[in-house]
Amino acid sequence: MNSRRYTVDLIAGDGIGQEVVPAATRVVDALARRHGFDMTWRDRNWGSAYFFEHGRMMPVDGIEQLSDGDAILLGAVGHPDLPDHETLWGLLIPIRREFLQYVNLRPVRVLPGVVSPLRDVEALDIVVVRENVEGEYSAVGGRAYRGTTDEFAIQEAVFTRTGITRVARYAAQLAATRRGSLTSATKSNGIIHSMPFWDEVVASVVSEVEGVRLRSTLIDALAAALVLRPGDFDVIVASNLFGDILSDLIAALAGSIGIAPSANINPPRHHPSMFEPIHGSAPDIAGKGIANPVGQLWSASLMLDHLGEAEAATALMTAIETAMSDGVLTADLGGTAGTQEFTSAVLRALSSGN
Amino acid sequence: MNSRRYTVDLIAGDGIGQEVVPAATRVVDALARRHGFDMTWRDRNWGSAYFFEHGRMMPVDGIEQLSDGDAILLGAVGHPDLPDHETLWGLLIPIRREFLQYVNLRPVRVLPGVVSPLRDVEALDIVVVRENVEGEYSAVGGRAYRGTTDEFAIQEAVFTRTGITRVARYAAQLAATRRGSLTSATKSNGIIHSMPFWDEVVASVVSEVEGVRLRSTLIDALAAALVLRPGDFDVIVASNLFGDILSDLIAALAGSIGIAPSANINPPRHHPSMFEPIHGSAPDIAGKGIANPVGQLWSASLMLDHLGEAEAATALMTAIETAMSDGVLTADLGGTAGTQEFTSAVLRALSSGN
Ligand SMILES: CC(C)[C@H](C(=O)O)[C@@H](O)C(=O)O
Ligand SMILES: CC(C)[C@H](C(=O)O)[C@@H](O)C(=O)O
Repeated sequence: MNSRRYTVDLIAGDGIGQEVVPAATRVVDALARRHGFDMTWRDRNWGSAYFFEHGRMMPVDGIEQLSDGDAILLGAVGHPDLPDHETLWGLLIPIRREFLQYVNLRPVRVLPGVVSPLRDVEALDIVVVRENVEGEYSAVGGRAYRGTTDEFAIQEAVFTRTGITRVARYAAQLAATRRGSLTSATKSNGIIHSMPFWDEVVASVVSEVEGVRLRSTLIDALAAALVLRPGDFDVIVASNLFGDILSDLIAALAGSIGIAPSANINPPRHHPSMFEPIHGSAPDIAGKGIANPVGQLWSASLMLDHLGEAEAATALMTAIETAMSDGVLTADLGGTAGTQEFTSAVLRALSSGN
Repeated sequence: MNSRRYTVDLIAGDGIGQEVVPAATRVVDALARRHGFDMTWRDRNWGSAYFFEHGRMMPVDGIEQLSDGDAILLGAVGHPDLPDHETLWGLLIPIRREFLQYVNLRPVRVLPGVVSPLRDVEALDIVVVRENVEGEYSAVGGRAYRGTTDEFAIQEAVFTRTGITRVARYAAQLAATRRGSLTSATKSNGIIHSMPFWDEVVASVVSEVEGVRLRSTLIDALAAALVLRPGDFDVIVASNLFGDILSDLIAALAGSIGIAPSANINPPRHHPSMFEPIHGSAPDIAGKGIANPVGQLWSASLMLDHLGEAEAATALMTAIETAMSDGVLTADLGGTAGTQEFTSAVLRALSSGN
């Protein structure tokens, strides 16, 4: 029996998720044949359609059903007729948290055929390591005196030494395998006092990892510097909110908001990790067969890498880049290829590669 | 006696603040003569030098001393040998808060001679209206179990109906005098529950102002959209932290991080408002006579406008743009002019104008 046998849960979800996830499984199946591993896909019909039928985004024991899988490949969640807090807290956020996927990994590069809004973006190659389970994303706090002129809301950001330590360690180790430069996004100039704590813990963790230079940069100055000198950055470690903002910003700078991937990782591998493009369900173009599958394919490449199939992961990225260099581009990038056509070009590049 | 007589406190402060504030007073004095109003400047030697002598950034009764002035023109605060929390909480933040300067106004345009990092930035003309006294900038919260593995920090963002209402109203009224489009920066997709409150209050306030279209955009998507379609935005209203990040980002997009102005305004005019460039004290170039005074001059223009001298304010902006169009540029913009030389060019443009 092949020990390289992986069980992956598929949550295609909403909108274009239904089109790009099948593209990814087609390509990964081809890679499995070429690289000698086995994929078992478990289709989960969860998401907004499931919600309309059952009043929830996934079954009561959804988390349990996923728990023995090796990974989760997610398309998109979000529906025009459902409030975000239902679709997100009902599916995405519980998976991130229950499986302690404390790293949200968001690599950004400029792929061939992509036009960046920046004049000079050659050198942009950044990975954002975003804290994914604590910080500013908390349900702690509340509202008082509703509806009166005295009404107020408080919202607590919660940072723990454990939480900062583990994400900073992951980021530092990643930087050590890349160009050795780690930037920590902060706002510690005495204004937000959870941030000096963040800085202290990050500095102490990073000092234990050899070959990594750390600089801490205020979030406002960092946003500006990314625009002005994107080539100066390698790995960026950031809190949940700052990482959310920075990763969208950087993806936009690379012209790739529609094609950027993300990995929600549980580094100790006690639980499955989840891989998803950063784009949403895009209801406006759903069902037309024109969605760009690159974000999903790139996410699948991150998944393969996480599963230990580094060669297949690299082959997939090379094939994507070949297809794009050859000018096979979807409408969002100014091309005419549909989802299927692009996917076929990737498959062709795979079989002609190596 | 001239009723158009204004008393303005000058806090040149640290580093290049000492060079650009005198540039501004020279120009404003010339404007006063031409436009028939009187300026009385009160020099305040506050800042880091004052700190080294007296152990504080300003006198104990500093706020009181400022309280009967018509406005405050500030250069920069910040010193390499002093922690930010001293310089900021000792001067800048108390002035913003004690004088209830709840609007932080940050206009961004692309001035002549400035090179934007974006390929296409023609249409960028945005004003950020940042909430300036509450929200995420709060000293509420704390750290527990210091130094142990259980250590944690919590930080509370505090939003009030009063606070959101007044800043949203200001932003909506401003949008009505411009292109009628107001974007509210939010993160309300169920994650940070103070933000639905922000959204509700903003929507209800804006609905009372005629001729203003409101859209609420998630902060991550907004950062990306600003990079991709800067021309789509007119006035942006944002919380303290979001406004801080967005205004630096937008200034960078316009290539003008070193020249952008800001106004800390108390709209009911119960207290003086404060005008300051967004750049810092720039210790690396201080004392060399090469600092770009545009941020300070532009801030002085906002001050004149606030004082009711709209004609002088406009004349000042026109003169700055004339000098820059004529190619008189400081080193940061690739030119060779020093602070004095640029200032003289502005004065020349003023006397040849109108
Ligand atoms: C959809 C939303 C909850 C999410 C987030 O803020 O985490 C998204 O913006 C992301 O970055 O994955
Ligand atoms: C210096 C700092 C306190 C300040 C802020 O965050 O308000 C600065 O970034 C600004 O935007 O004026």
